[in-house]
Amino acid sequence: MAYAAPVDDMMLALKTAGDLDGMIARGIYGGLDAETVRAVIEEAGRFGAEVLAPLNTPGDRTGSKLVDGKVVTPPGWKEAYQAFKDGGWVSLPGAEKWGGQGLPEVVSMAACEIWNASNLAFGLCPLLSQGAVHALVSHGDDYVQRTYIPKLVSGEWTGTMNLTEPHAGSDLGALTTRAERQPDGTYRLFGTKIFITYGEHELTDNIVHLVLARLPDAPAGTRGISLFVVPKFLVNADGSIGARNDVVCAGLEHKLGIHASPTCVMKYGENDGATGWLVGEENRGLAVMFIMMNAARLGVGVQGVALADRALQHALAYAKERRQGRSLVPRVAAGSPQGSRDAPAMSPIIEHADVRRTLLTMQSMTQAARMICTATAAALDLAHLSTDPAERAQAQARVALLTPVAKAFSTDVGVEVASMGVQLHGGMGFIEETGAAQFYRDARILPIYEGTNGIQAIDLVTRKLPLENGRVVSAFIAELERTVADVKASNQPAFGRMADRLADAVDALKEASMWLGRALAKNPEAALAGATPYLRLFGLTAGGAYLARGALAAAREGHSPHAIAQARFFAENLLTATSGLASTITGGADVVIETTAEKLGG
Amino acid sequence: MAYAAPVDDMMLALKTAGDLDGMIARGIYGGLDAETVRAVIEEAGRFGAEVLAPLNTPGDRTGSKLVDGKVVTPPGWKEAYQAFKDGGWVSLPGAEKWGGQGLPEVVSMAACEIWNASNLAFGLCPLLSQGAVHALVSHGDDYVQRTYIPKLVSGEWTGTMNLTEPHAGSDLGALTTRAERQPDGTYRLFGTKIFITYGEHELTDNIVHLVLARLPDAPAGTRGISLFVVPKFLVNADGSIGARNDVVCAGLEHKLGIHASPTCVMKYGENDGATGWLVGEENRGLAVMFIMMNAARLGVGVQGVALADRALQHALAYAKERRQGRSLVPRVAAGSPQGSRDAPAMSPIIEHADVRRTLLTMQSMTQAARMICTATAAALDLAHLSTDPAERAQAQARVALLTPVAKAFSTDVGVEVASMGVQLHGGMGFIEETGAAQFYRDARILPIYEGTNGIQAIDLVTRKLPLENGRVVSAFIAELERTVADVKASNQPAFGRMADRLADAVDALKEASMWLGRALAKNPEAALAGATPYLRLFGLTAGGAYLARGALAAAREGHSPHAIAQARFFAENLLTATSGLASTITGGADVVIETTAEKLGG
Repeated sequence: MAYAAPVDDMMLALKTAGDLDGMIARGIYGGLDAETVRAVIEEAGRFGAEVLAPLNTPGDRTGSKLVDGKVVTPPGWKEAYQAFKDGGWVSLPGAEKWGGQGLPEVVSMAACEIWNASNLAFGLCPLLSQGAVHALVSHGDDYVQRTYIPKLVSGEWTGTMNLTEPHAGSDLGALTTRAERQPDGTYRLFGTKIFITYGEHELTDNIVHLVLARLPDAPAGTRGISLFVVPKFLVNADGSIGARNDVVCAGLEHKLGIHASPTCVMKYGENDGATGWLVGEENRGLAVMFIMMNAARLGVGVQGVALADRALQHALAYAKERRQGRSLVPRVAAGSPQGSRDAPAMSPIIEHADVRRTLLTMQSMTQAARMICTATAAALDLAHLSTDPAERAQAQARVALLTPVAKAFSTDVGVEVASMGVQLHGGMGFIEETGAAQFYRDARILPIYEGTNGIQAIDLVTRKLPLENGRVVSAFIAELERTVADVKASNQPAFGRMADRLADAVDALKEASMWLGRALAKNPEAALAGATPYLRLFGLTAGGAYLARGALAAAREGHSPHAIAQARFFAENLLTATSGLASTITGGADVVIETTAEKLGG
Repeated sequence: MAYAAPVDDMMLALKTAGDLDGMIARGIYGGLDAETVRAVIEEAGRFGAEVLAPLNTPGDRTGSKLVDGKVVTPPGWKEAYQAFKDGGWVSLPGAEKWGGQGLPEVVSMAACEIWNASNLAFGLCPLLSQGAVHALVSHGDDYVQRTYIPKLVSGEWTGTMNLTEPHAGSDLGALTTRAERQPDGTYRLFGTKIFITYGEHELTDNIVHLVLARLPDAPAGTRGISLFVVPKFLVNADGSIGARNDVVCAGLEHKLGIHASPTCVMKYGENDGATGWLVGEENRGLAVMFIMMNAARLGVGVQGVALADRALQHALAYAKERRQGRSLVPRVAAGSPQGSRDAPAMSPIIEHADVRRTLLTMQSMTQAARMICTATAAALDLAHLSTDPAERAQAQARVALLTPVAKAFSTDVGVEVASMGVQLHGGMGFIEETGAAQFYRDARILPIYEGTNGIQAIDLVTRKLPLENGRVVSAFIAELERTVADVKASNQPAFGRMADRLADAVDALKEASMWLGRALAKNPEAALAGATPYLRLFGLTAGGAYLARGALAAAREGHSPHAIAQARFFAENLLTATSGLASTITGGADVVIETTAEKLGG
């Protein structure tokens, strides 16, 4: 089905959750103006719709295949990548210093949503390259930076992240890939990595692998991990492609979804060892990897938004077209049959209240997640671009707080909305040809990779809540309270019960945050037991507040009536879950702790 | 992975939600005793584990295929069906009059769960045959009954349900398949049916299709639909197989899941017309079909339980085995390393609180759904077997009330638990080889077929709540209130906050039921807008109450400590959602009604 970038919704998110006008007025974004931002997003939307979206279904059917050690991507993939690179879309977020266009994170994020909504399996590839750039920019030495960054920024080469091993997934401390020091200052790597996205392909002349490994004398666990850059082909002094490095793709996984994205088993050092260069200091690789992962986590959250939006567009089109049953909506159009109860005067299913509930849930969840991701990206921009060091630090803390929520909440939304999309199609939804099933399959990886959503929740509770003794989360909640006050003061009848529901939600978040803060000190296991419901509570409340800001802007400026309906629906129908989540967190932990593995049948 | 029937959990459901001991003591089940019930379930469990479960993964990979108009089921399928029939498993629920074993619905339901947990794609086949038997027993004439019922009951032939057409899914009134009267009293059918499960196969010598069609002079809509029995092969007077009837399988759907179950496009009357016999009266076919569908709806609910249980067993085994990270649980076992933070002393992931929360959610949701289905099946038994006509009528009303909840709540649980199962496996969950992904794919059909869950919710609100002026639902809620009182009176410290949480849930259900009752009279669109959250609220509350009864029994009799933990977890962690659902229903409808198709972008 055709894809159309949701430019208006994106702009509303940028202007409210991202404070785009304020950032522009303050000069944070240099000479950029809102019209240019919109123009870039529209142009990206055209590219996504015209080039990437048509390859999504065929890519799913064909998949990437391993033939004689080479990965063959689906037909059209190589041409699409070439056009993507030539169109300047890879270099969009890169720093001007490295040949990039230096556009803000918020714009890059909107474009990222478009690539992934058009074609998730394609969109993953540049996302990983960006992660590699982040790591190299922050910690690469001069040789590494000038050798690899410009090629990655331009898209001439792509990048990968090599973390997981068969027995080291969430627990990176357990990894065993070995790196041996060489007299010339390089290293030789030996080991097997799994789940390496685009670990091998022929889209570009070279692939830049970032690989976690352990030196022979490294301490055990996470404090003994180093990061290396290992190119598929060694690079000559003049920047040209040299000899093949000792790294091969030994297999592709047969996956539930994203079939076109090759998920590789990578073998390093099957012969003399794969030549690598250290990034950052020895044994300090995890810190560098976290930089890369944090950026990637926001990117994965955006993938959740993207998938949700695509599933929503698909379902909405079907709901307008498919006719079943007779709704209670009066048919006033001339000539529409009023008929008897049994007359075949079928309504488009969008006229049925239950279907509208589903569509409103899909829409408002998607926009809430988009706004959380946008707020995170805007904070990232401020952390990079503000001239005030205190503001930079504050913004960085905000990024740290919101990143696990952006990742986990948005990807849960992706799965839930994709599932609703299948359901809305009825029996047709279960037929692969319809397309809804692909979104349901593709979406399922998002809550898993770049740190499972359980890991995100634990990160939120154990690392982010305690930041600056709780002041980071308190400042955020105080901001939400100001939104509640604004909604109350606005006195808009069209807002319905929005103010009360949002106020209850913020109270619930505050109560749960305080409870968890205390639990962390005296009973950490109880805090861990509440991590997943807390992240949900956080996402719902933040999402509801951002939607409310969008509604306030819409009411003030007299546009986007659907933004008001979405915010109101979300408040009255979904924020109602927040008090219960707080009760779960504060009253449900004991039984989780007391139910041992034995009682679980373990 | 191996499957083991959850016999203890099933027996607890039978004894509490199904009041098995009471039913036996009253003689409702004739000479049957609880030991025999358990023995039958155990034996079924062995058959499922040994014969059906090993075919589940290969069946998914191979799928059923259409070759020269014949459906080829996966290797082993035919032998398994033969063993299934020969073992007497098909005839288990059939009436003794027709050669069946006459076992109660509650036992048949437990067996049905086992077949579907072992192999959902296989379990569908006998489920549909049973639906056909129900329709023929209730409305077939003498010729039809003696020709078809014994062969269906024994499993010698299988049955199908032919409802859906390309433009008539949820709205059966729109169907166009034509039936023409013949001078000999038979009919000739012409038309195309889609989504016909096991519409064609070679497992048995004949297939008995039940087909909805329209007579030439029939009124439009649902009041002009008749039901016909149309065999694949005509049956000679002596019961032997005669000529091929004019019905063919024209194609198989390429589906998201249940690949081994052939989903057929059936063409009736490509030549002279398919010969059929009327079941029930002309133009009254829908009423007969509803008998069949209601039984099938409970069966599909049981499939939801089955799939959830299978996904749970699979995830639990992984959680016990997979080691990642270090939990906060003290390792007291001799020799287990305490080590430093970074020492690779990894815990099985079941020791992590967040994983235990997931497993407890999966377990308690599964058992709650099982109990709701068991209560429905027990009511069905009472409706058939009680000697008191008033009790029979009351029980039949209870069946009517609970059937949409059993279907929709349990199948939503199936999808949710299967999704959690994938998540619990981390990256491995997304790899098809692991097996968790198949459950996620297979489960997705369950909320769709036999009436989408949205249709179930609408049925619950618009047809079941008004039954006997609301007295049916009131009587049910009064029963839940007695459970609340029992839990309060039990005064068990191990129950934690169970009494309060359950009381709140029952209050929420009562409030929402009353609100919907009023809305139905004055603003039906508002009632429809709340249908889906109401069904969820109903399922959670009923499930929580049944789990609490299980906990009471366990506490009283000093067994099954996990039943107490499950009920408490469900109450403290999941019933917390009920107040919010009531708020959604009573306060969230206006925005759903006001948001027209245009505002939705429609």
